[in-house]
Amino acid sequence: MELTGPIVLTDHRYGKAENRIVRIHRQSARHEIRDVNVSTVLRGDFTDAYVTGDQAKVLPTDSQKQTAYAFAKRPGLRAIEDYALALADHFVAEIEPVRSARVEVDEYAWQRVTVGGVEHDHTWVRQGPEVRTVAVTVAGRGAERQAWVVGGVKDLTILKSTGSEFAGFLTDEFTVLAPTSDRMLATALVAEWRFASSAGVDWDEVYTGVRARLVETFATLHSKALQQTLFEMGKAVLTAYPVLAEIRLAAPNKHHFDYELGRFGIENHGEVYHADDRPYGLIHATVARADAPEAGPAWTR
Amino acid sequence: MELTGPIVLTDHRYGKAENRIVRIHRQSARHEIRDVNVSTVLRGDFTDAYVTGDQAKVLPTDSQKQTAYAFAKRPGLRAIEDYALALADHFVAEIEPVRSARVEVDEYAWQRVTVGGVEHDHTWVRQGPEVRTVAVTVAGRGAERQAWVVGGVKDLTILKSTGSEFAGFLTDEFTVLAPTSDRMLATALVAEWRFASSAGVDWDEVYTGVRARLVETFATLHSKALQQTLFEMGKAVLTAYPVLAEIRLAAPNKHHFDYELGRFGIENHGEVYHADDRPYGLIHATVARADAPEAGPAWTR
Amino acid sequence: MELTGPIVLTDHRYGKAENRIVRIHRQSARHEIRDVNVSTVLRGDFTDAYVTGDQAKVLPTDSQKQTAYAFAKRPGLRAIEDYALALADHFVAEIEPVRSARVEVDEYAWQRVTVGGVEHDHTWVRQGPEVRTVAVTVAGRGAERQAWVVGGVKDLTILKSTGSEFAGFLTDEFTVLAPTSDRMLATALVAEWRFASSAGVDWDEVYTGVRARLVETFATLHSKALQQTLFEMGKAVLTAYPVLAEIRLAAPNKHHFDYELGRFGIENHGEVYHADDRPYGLIHATVARADAPEAGPAWTR
Amino acid sequence: MELTGPIVLTDHRYGKAENRIVRIHRQSARHEIRDVNVSTVLRGDFTDAYVTGDQAKVLPTDSQKQTAYAFAKRPGLRAIEDYALALADHFVAEIEPVRSARVEVDEYAWQRVTVGGVEHDHTWVRQGPEVRTVAVTVAGRGAERQAWVVGGVKDLTILKSTGSEFAGFLTDEFTVLAPTSDRMLATALVAEWRFASSAGVDWDEVYTGVRARLVETFATLHSKALQQTLFEMGKAVLTAYPVLAEIRLAAPNKHHFDYELGRFGIENHGEVYHADDRPYGLIHATVARADAPEAGPAWTR
Repeated sequence: MELTGPIVLTDHRYGKAENRIVRIHRQSARHEIRDVNVSTVLRGDFTDAYVTGDQAKVLPTDSQKQTAYAFAKRPGLRAIEDYALALADHFVAEIEPVRSARVEVDEYAWQRVTVGGVEHDHTWVRQGPEVRTVAVTVAGRGAERQAWVVGGVKDLTILKSTGSEFAGFLTDEFTVLAPTSDRMLATALVAEWRFASSAGVDWDEVYTGVRARLVETFATLHSKALQQTLFEMGKAVLTAYPVLAEIRLAAPNKHHFDYELGRFGIENHGEVYHADDRPYGLIHATVARADAPEAGPAWTR
Repeated sequence: MELTGPIVLTDHRYGKAENRIVRIHRQSARHEIRDVNVSTVLRGDFTDAYVTGDQAKVLPTDSQKQTAYAFAKRPGLRAIEDYALALADHFVAEIEPVRSARVEVDEYAWQRVTVGGVEHDHTWVRQGPEVRTVAVTVAGRGAERQAWVVGGVKDLTILKSTGSEFAGFLTDEFTVLAPTSDRMLATALVAEWRFASSAGVDWDEVYTGVRARLVETFATLHSKALQQTLFEMGKAVLTAYPVLAEIRLAAPNKHHFDYELGRFGIENHGEVYHADDRPYGLIHATVARADAPEAGPAWTR
Repeated sequence: MELTGPIVLTDHRYGKAENRIVRIHRQSARHEIRDVNVSTVLRGDFTDAYVTGDQAKVLPTDSQKQTAYAFAKRPGLRAIEDYALALADHFVAEIEPVRSARVEVDEYAWQRVTVGGVEHDHTWVRQGPEVRTVAVTVAGRGAERQAWVVGGVKDLTILKSTGSEFAGFLTDEFTVLAPTSDRMLATALVAEWRFASSAGVDWDEVYTGVRARLVETFATLHSKALQQTLFEMGKAVLTAYPVLAEIRLAAPNKHHFDYELGRFGIENHGEVYHADDRPYGLIHATVARADAPEAGPAWTR
Repeated sequence: MELTGPIVLTDHRYGKAENRIVRIHRQSARHEIRDVNVSTVLRGDFTDAYVTGDQAKVLPTDSQKQTAYAFAKRPGLRAIEDYALALADHFVAEIEPVRSARVEVDEYAWQRVTVGGVEHDHTWVRQGPEVRTVAVTVAGRGAERQAWVVGGVKDLTILKSTGSEFAGFLTDEFTVLAPTSDRMLATALVAEWRFASSAGVDWDEVYTGVRARLVETFATLHSKALQQTLFEMGKAVLTAYPVLAEIRLAAPNKHHFDYELGRFGIENHGEVYHADDRPYGLIHATVARADAPEAGPAWTR
């Protein structure tokens, strides 16, 4: 098939990615830290920049960077959801050609050091690998302003050494996998939850609570498959937080294979595993409230 | 806002990611190599696996893996587009609960070694960092079968030391960037092009030709901004290949800053740069034929 | 200068790197986990393998792998120092051509999940980025057997938001850095400590104690430079643990730059920082007991 | 064993790591590019900085950075060996407390783009993954000045699909590997070659020639083991370049396993492989001239 129609610019966007901002709150001797990675994306009336090279409507990505750092001081950087909303609102409200703005923030956790059993005022060690995330989208001005907030966690690496099976599956000519009633289950979870609205939410409380539900469900559910575990994790979260419209879960099945030691006369009943790198299963699930409001551009990167 | 509706499973999919397959063709003493990373994703009637834990309709990801390796021999692995189509077609046609299948392949390039000026029969060195990609989606059986092919290249890292400017842009209270009439321009391009149909295409010829157009346009266009460069690259590709419906380009602006040497009494006229890591501009553009067929699930991961 | 002497094999060694072993202890319903990355290196009478291609004295790296997995069951895998000693001893004692063996182990930490305030029996989340390490070397058989143990931690990422200065330094024609009496100090520490002997040590107690001394000293010492901080950290460790002969510290100075907000009319007194990636200072220090026994091959990879 | 001796600073060093410098030579319309990653390390009379916190003899790592960028202009950056020698010489000659300096440089390769069959003046694409390296050490002033140069290449990823065997090896109770007369052999080579002297060498010619010998030997030698291949590669290099004193080779054995397709009724005679990630064999060899001058600090990082 050969096409002959005119060649046109369709979707386009631009921004500054991965501004690595650290914010210290030092109102008292006991400092607080927020360590974030901020990316901004603008959509709007930028066709000329692409098609004719005219940059008159383009706010430089450098200006977006300066704004991201400035906003860490004023209005400030506490909950990343609030910071991202303020930054996105600024671009839409203040920069004329902007129609919508998306701000994504990763937050790295730091744990306060203890010295002689007492928490230290201004020293921390990094906690990981899990990272808190947010993606905020704001579109429209004044009465037409709309906002979407998606909170999340990524690289939440979790493992259970029993309480997981995989059996009764479909087989075909290429199926050689044996069913198992007791296997190790491990993943590096990515979860993102969409808020029904962006007003009046205690972001930190929701984050802590959602993470707890995810972890507890993974631990306590006897798993028939990672698919089932993901669904139940999502269901537990939505049940606990009616403020959430939906949750998306992506989970690599990080395979741990029982190591074959019988040939050396050594018994191995789920004790010695090889943690394999690749390939890995990759399972996705979206769990939603039936009465959830439309997602709009909430998930559009 | 508090939601009260029932909690339901909406989107879901699963597969085996990153099967690292190397295929050697050894019909003659002069071997050929194909080195790929294959990921499969299935969509279909898998709700029970999530909601009740019943796996009766779930083809294990391990079986998908075996199939990916088997298909490297038969029907075979030459152009990754053909291989991905065959694999996706198999899952949809042969596995009853499957409604659609997506197969993504990355291909790593190897260059034949020369010994004494002669190409060696069975030894290669890896070429990079650029990687050829394909994402194939097949949905429906028999008369309803449809297929979408998206070819691509990623990490095509390209740099020009002059012939690029950035001036006349919008300014705001946070703008401190100075306009420039001569700067270095560098990116690690990701480009993906959607074919209007999947029949009768010489995949290798298109890949080579698209890559050449991208590189040539980047080199020869005097750039007023990375936005303009991307649009012109896309336009050049679509102009040359009417078989393409659209092309999506994503380009980090890998900043190289003129290093301030004047304070040491040393002139620096675009000779010494600091290559910065983060943050970076990130520009997206989609260029399409106005008469392009619907994209359907072509871009849906 | 042109050399004319015969060409000879000098140093050589070989082994299996990065065996990813997970060991679950399940004697009771409350499981325990050890998650390690094991590398083995053998030195000995292997010249023929290199010079003539005769492999008669070469134990395959695959056999070393099997041994590493088997030893995770028997004698077992608790403290990585004991496991590494057992494995290294085996190669030297049992494989005739082996003169010395080095076993390096990284251990990844997992934190037990709590459900309803109670620790769960068999579910954990990964802790990081810090990693516990050990490098054991064993040489000689029977009465001539010698062993060296080097414990360690790497990627211990630690930051203090005040209590650090850098001033009074040497200047030259290229010095533009301003002295500062209050800066952020952050590093991703690598520390390795050599034990005076490998007998009768409570490995886990030493690890916990050394880590605590490192962290506490970093927090409480008013730092005049990262050099001084490293020395005092090492001194605190050796003072607390007379069983240690020396400690080696390597610390990237992860620069956090005060962000220039004054040009926007915003005060920034150590509140908003840019966390830069590269370049970074890199400081090394070795602190030792004057009466430490010879290091021998303890540090030779 | 408990130690009671005084606690002292022994080895120490410091510097600025990973200065990412790009140098454009633009004397004519046909530009040239050098893209490097430069790390400096100083040793000398810095004990006070560690032990008392007195920085009076410490040249800031920031000053080292400025110097690295300045030297890219003057004396300049062509062959990385010359640049590293100039930089190291500067620190030792001009900074009083410095006793020795080590400069390590990685160089990333760029290939000039062709447009319409003609090489473009100022546009390149990155080549990789292989990287050219150098490590230069200079110690002493005036008549006592000594210099050591170690050139190298890393991540030279090379594969042969036949012409490799592994048989006749030692077996023990953990040996299950089957001997093979035809296997795939692949590695990501790291090679470093020490020059007998640093005077009068055509660095670029040696680099190109050494790389060619490494690749050609890998291709043409029928390999009985990776050990043998490494030795022969080293021998070929030293034979061709009497200016070299020794060469050190480190090679991961990147395992490619024949995929078991017989169970699906599909023959697989060295055609379909799984490229495994971990674990991997890791083989080291040093090949030297018997009359090589002493290595001194050439290999000391």
